[in-house]
Amino acid sequence: MQFHERPVLPRGFHCASRNCGLKPTAKDLALFISDVDAAAAAVFTRNHFPGAPVVLGRETIQGGTLRAIVANSKCSNVATGERGIENARRMAAAAAAEIATDPSKVLVSSTGVIGVQLPIETIESGIRGMRGDMQDDPLVGAEGIMTTDTHPKALSTSVGDATITWVAKGSGMIEPNMATLLVYIFTDAMVDRATLDQMLRNAVSGSFNMLSVDSDTSTSDTCAILANGLAGAVDNRELARALAAGCTRMTEILARDGEGAEHLVRVIVRNAASDGDARRIAKSVVNSPLVKTMVHGADPNVGRLLMAVGKCVDCTVRPDTTDAWINGLQVVRNGQRVSFDENLVRATLRTEVVDLELSLGVGEARATAYGCDLGQGYVDENAAYYSS
Amino acid sequence: MQFHERPVLPRGFHCASRNCGLKPTAKDLALFISDVDAAAAAVFTRNHFPGAPVVLGRETIQGGTLRAIVANSKCSNVATGERGIENARRMAAAAAAEIATDPSKVLVSSTGVIGVQLPIETIESGIRGMRGDMQDDPLVGAEGIMTTDTHPKALSTSVGDATITWVAKGSGMIEPNMATLLVYIFTDAMVDRATLDQMLRNAVSGSFNMLSVDSDTSTSDTCAILANGLAGAVDNRELARALAAGCTRMTEILARDGEGAEHLVRVIVRNAASDGDARRIAKSVVNSPLVKTMVHGADPNVGRLLMAVGKCVDCTVRPDTTDAWINGLQVVRNGQRVSFDENLVRATLRTEVVDLELSLGVGEARATAYGCDLGQGYVDENAAYYSS
Repeated sequence: MQFHERPVLPRGFHCASRNCGLKPTAKDLALFISDVDAAAAAVFTRNHFPGAPVVLGRETIQGGTLRAIVANSKCSNVATGERGIENARRMAAAAAAEIATDPSKVLVSSTGVIGVQLPIETIESGIRGMRGDMQDDPLVGAEGIMTTDTHPKALSTSVGDATITWVAKGSGMIEPNMATLLVYIFTDAMVDRATLDQMLRNAVSGSFNMLSVDSDTSTSDTCAILANGLAGAVDNRELARALAAGCTRMTEILARDGEGAEHLVRVIVRNAASDGDARRIAKSVVNSPLVKTMVHGADPNVGRLLMAVGKCVDCTVRPDTTDAWINGLQVVRNGQRVSFDENLVRATLRTEVVDLELSLGVGEARATAYGCDLGQGYVDENAAYYSS
Repeated sequence: MQFHERPVLPRGFHCASRNCGLKPTAKDLALFISDVDAAAAAVFTRNHFPGAPVVLGRETIQGGTLRAIVANSKCSNVATGERGIENARRMAAAAAAEIATDPSKVLVSSTGVIGVQLPIETIESGIRGMRGDMQDDPLVGAEGIMTTDTHPKALSTSVGDATITWVAKGSGMIEPNMATLLVYIFTDAMVDRATLDQMLRNAVSGSFNMLSVDSDTSTSDTCAILANGLAGAVDNRELARALAAGCTRMTEILARDGEGAEHLVRVIVRNAASDGDARRIAKSVVNSPLVKTMVHGADPNVGRLLMAVGKCVDCTVRPDTTDAWINGLQVVRNGQRVSFDENLVRATLRTEVVDLELSLGVGEARATAYGCDLGQGYVDENAAYYSS
């Protein structure tokens, strides 16, 4: 699929971001709006300790219609009790007042440290006047929600006469630093709520839900889609395909920007006994610290691939039918390491994208997981996240 | 329980170790023998790609009687096919010839890089003459099986007139570097095979199976116990208690020596809905990279404890009844961070042993998991394990 060279927002959508004082100088607040009511769907973290904005968001999304998303970084409003919920409601109300809509049509997100109350007055004054800053560049909104991201993240593509735009931050449903995955998708295609919800769940299943930087699940993960219909109806199959492709591309962008990462690692599992097995094994390999450090060090210690497949003790695995490739170079055949040119493997492990492919020879199912290498940068960033 | 200040082998057990040429100069071969037949039990890795010594070991342990254990480091004999099995048999035969017993009474272990054939002639000549080197100090045997361990590991204690001795290497059933957990336990207590097997499984369940340095499961893990009966029968309940206590203590020693680790981390989960939940949640917290880096950096980012509990989406967790303590200092009450003295928490996170305690308030079950912090040393050691 072709993405626009420079991402744009679909018609009727605008965004703004600013520093409201939560961080010293960097942007810490973003507002995304639709000129008209948009059909909306969203998925949230499955963590048992959802943040206050997630608790409120689950209620808000029941309405099925959104006019705005307001999000802050630096403080996640998680583990903050009743006061946290109240602050999330105040944040929705402030954004609603700013654009003259109802608070029930505003989705709220917060990302940052857990267990600290939101400085709600600071945010409320920050929101005032944002309406006047509105722009059509999604990267402007993306800037306001960055935490440890090294760059703002947005993508857009066309489907017929409509546009789909993705704005994201963080590094996964399963990700570093409690920095939280936030993904907002905007389209001017006309599509009903039920269809939109189904399309979103399908797209997320094969993309963001297969992303892992460090196996830790944020308490604030949120992925929402808004369809304001201003471009009219388009072919829904085409829309669903574009939605899935963009979610996958954004997943790759997020994985590559995992903390301390130097590589995007894609683990492709083929010929598994079931979809569940394929997904679990792909996740096991992408999450294995020993596989991640092998990629980081360009160390052709390929036995670790078998270890990471084999530790899925509840999956169907046959040593004598298991094959493995690194960027197309076969390193394992029938469960045994084949002799290969080590310098070639070292060289291919140094490329930015490393594809680890496994064929299990026990069925027809397949899955791809997305992650990154594990380097010193991850340890450095996370050993002092709260204190710094 | 009291352990001997300097570990000793029980009567009738001896060991030797040497450098046979697999490593440049460090010891790489160990032989443990019993003067008489010993009742034996063992548990092995559940990884789908067991090493050749594990495949052979499962067959050997069926006999229920052992006279010797022979083990090499540097090369794990995993993913080596039929030739690997044959080499493991040759290693057993060489040790059996050396001490004039049957190969079916020799347990074989290998630990090191995966996917490389064992230099079997080197090992065979290394074994020749080891009978003459026999000593009664278990640390001598422990030296021969070290890989990335920073020190040889052995413990012993008395039970009535009998002695139990543990010799180990590595850092877990689930551990770093594919360096493999090997634990050998020797006792001169008289105990029948079936009882011995049951005692071993009980002891391992609460100790080695609750150990995790990095969530990666070795293909060679082996824990075996030999009881030669030379001290006669002892109180079996006392023996079982001592066996469990020693396995737990050895687990702590292994966790503390996890690669790059500076802390032993114990995660105690109380008041869980079931044993399974308690074990899974304890493992989730001890394995969380964000909790491990928090301990490493002495960063009081305590919300990460809730994240790591909450990501066990299939367990029973109630945010409003979840409490948490770090070395006895309460940091979470009813799912919310309490205000605490940050400098005190920083200081306690700098102690060598860090106890993270969680009370879930939903039942009576409890479990303890053992692990370590995640530091730069882990990345350094594992990014070039094969190449160095």
